Parts: sequence; C-alpha cells; structure tokens
Amino acid sequence: MTERFSQSLRRQSEPTWSAAVGHRFVTRLCDGSLPDPIMVDYLVQDHRFLDSFLTLLGAAIATADTFEARLRFGRFAGMISSDENTYFLRAFEALGVRPAQRSEPADTAPTAGFKAIMREAAATRSYAAALAVLNVAEGLYLDWALKAPKPMPDNFVHAEWITLHDNPAFQAFVAFLQAELDRVGPQEAALASDFYQRTVALELAFFDAVYPEGK
Amino acid sequence: MTERFSQSLRRQSEPTWSAAVGHRFVTRLCDGSLPDPIMVDYLVQDHRFLDSFLTLLGAAIATADTFEARLRFGRFAGMISSDENTYFLRAFEALGVRPAQRSEPADTAPTAGFKAIMREAAATRSYAAALAVLNVAEGLYLDWALKAPKPMPDNFVHAEWITLHDNPAFQAFVAFLQAELDRVGPQEAALASDFYQRTVALELAFFDAVYPEGK
Repeated sequence: MTERFSQSLRRQSEPTWSAAVGHRFVTRLCDGSLPDPIMVDYLVQDHRFLDSFLTLLGAAIATADTFEARLRFGRFAGMISSDENTYFLRAFEALGVRPAQRSEPADTAPTAGFKAIMREAAATRSYAAALAVLNVAEGLYLDWALKAPKPMPDNFVHAEWITLHDNPAFQAFVAFLQAELDRVGPQEAALASDFYQRTVALELAFFDAVYPEGK
Repeated sequence: MTERFSQSLRRQSEPTWSAAVGHRFVTRLCDGSLPDPIMVDYLVQDHRFLDSFLTLLGAAIATADTFEARLRFGRFAGMISSDENTYFLRAFEALGVRPAQRSEPADTAPTAGFKAIMREAAATRSYAAALAVLNVAEGLYLDWALKAPKPMPDNFVHAEWITLHDNPAFQAFVAFLQAELDRVGPQEAALASDFYQRTVALELAFFDAVYPEGK
C-alpha cells in the first residue's frame, strides 16, 4: 500500500515531530505538574499568533476548492474565534496575568517565526500551503493530546487546553486536514513539504523556548 | 456633521436600495403570503452563492487589519457555516425540494453576478472591497428584516429567514461592518463605491429575477 502524502511528510519530519510531541512542556502540562510561570509564558506567546492563525484560516476558507471544505474551515474559524480565544482570556484571568505581562515580553524567535510562516502561507494563495501548516499545527497538537494520561489535571487551565485538542470534533477536523492534504498536496509537493517541515521545526523550537532545559 | 462614508454610499445607491428593501418578494415573505414555489426558487438560487460568500468572508478574515475584526469575521463565518447553512437544508426538506430541483435550474443572471462579484472582491485582497460587498449583502437584509411586521409568519421557513437577519448579534455585526467601512473605505473610495453600487444593483435584480411582475 502506498504511503499517504500526509504520512510521508510526517515521517520525513522525524525525529523533530516526536521530540515536540514528547517534549517536557507537554508531559508536565498533561500530568498537571507544569509550573504556573511556564504556563503563563506559554499562553502569552501562543496567544500572540492567534491573529496570524486566523489569517491563515481565512486564506484556507478563501482558497479551498470545494464548498464542503469551506464549510468545515468556516465552522473551525468560528470555534477558534470564540471558544479558543475566550480560553486564553479566562486562563489569563485565572493565572492573574496582568496586562503588562501580556504586552511587554518580546516575541520569542519561534513566535515571530510562526507569525511569519502563517502569513507567508496565506499570502501564497495556495490551498496546499495552508493545509501543510494547518496539518502540523493541529495534527501535532492532537498527537500529544491523545497521549495525555487520564484522568486529566484538575486545573481547568491545563485540562481545557488538552480537551480543546482532543475531542471528537477536533479529531474529525484533523482527519479532514489529512485527507485534504493527501488529495491536493501531491500536485504541489515541494511547496507543501517546505511549509510542513519548517512548521514542525517551529513547534519544537516553540516548546524549547518556553521551557528550556534547566528552567 | 459630515456624512459617514457608509451612509454616503447608501444614499448614492438610491433609489435602487429602497426598491430592493421594499420589493414585493420581501413584503410577501414578511407577511407570510409568499407562494412556496417562489420561496423554493429563491432559496435554491440564494444557496448557490453561499460558497462564494464564504470565500469572501475568508478573504475578509485574511485581509482585515486588526485582530478584533478578524475575531468578529471568524465568529460570523462560524455562524454562516452552521446555522445559516443548515437553515437552507432544513428549508429544502420542509418544502419537499428534490435534489434535481436544487441542481438543475440554471443560475439566474443575478446569481451568476453575485458569485462573480464576491470572488472578484476576494481576489482584490482589499479589505475595503470585501467590506463594501458585505455592507450591502448584510446591511440591505437587516434593513428589510427590521421592517417585518410582528408577529412573524408561523412557517419557520419564512420566520427563521427573517430572524437570521434581524437579531441582536446580526444588528451588532452590521453596525461593525458600517464602522469598518467608515474607517478604511475613504482611503479606497472609488474601489469601495464601485463594489458597493454594483452589489446593490445585484440585490434588486436578484429579487426581480426570482419574483418578476406577473408571476
């Protein structure tokens, strides 16, 4: 049986993919032992590129080649603009994050990289490029969330972040992203692979930056 | 006091705007006397450009110049991709519309025109162009829905179509669209005006095509 295009890209992204999925940041988040200051730094940086992520989703809506795909991206954009955005705001409040703590820290290099690659993918007007970035951003998160031990941490800041990335709707969305990449990616294989591999590297670098060894 | 940019465009669209808002199709829809075959023709044609409308919303998400605007368009795209799309499917079922009745009729000229202008506005990558089309598509619908006599028709096919275009969230969204057009439109006044006026003409032509005099 021929390897699916999305599986091929993922295989080629090793060992970086697995290093990100198994990162100390993730395992400590999932078992509830992540120190609050690390979670604060993470959420502040992660929320920084929600704007660029929505830009990328908008480009996916605009460039998708079927009505059904557009409807799925539209519903996902709705979820990101409501449930996921308010999660950040509720988490900042629960963690006592002051406005200055959100606005003053500089973007880490990976945060700046994420902003740039999402806008770059949107600017290509290539559905395949958008799909490549989205497959990593969502697929890698599903992959670690699926590995989270049960029961989940009591703290909603941890538990809800896991649940946002492991629930039936999200699993179905990631399966849809893979099927779409399998369908349209091979016609733009080099472009898709370039965006995919760079995004995987950013995911690992993002976790490394927020929770480096020795911190 | 200076006239707002959005108000100026609307004034210049008269008498076409008012002819659309006061069209026999709308008044009969609102008082519950619209014949079912006309409503079927209307919904079949209107659903045809939901795909292009989502493309335009995606472009608005991708080209908006603030995070807050992107969030609002994202939530609206979520609503269109869920509540509004399922309204069509439920209405088709309630009206006994067979698949062939949905697929076989040719696009009317205004339907083809809507598809084209929405994709054209999306392709400009101009936020002002997207806003101009959206201000007409949503603002003109709010304008007639606000005039609907109460109580509303019993038939959900009529009542829900009115409610989708006159509820607090929709009113707030139209106010947002106007404020955004006032803010960014003047810098691209000719482009915005061109899209705005052509879209108003299409709205009237769409109602005329689906419910011409004598039908």
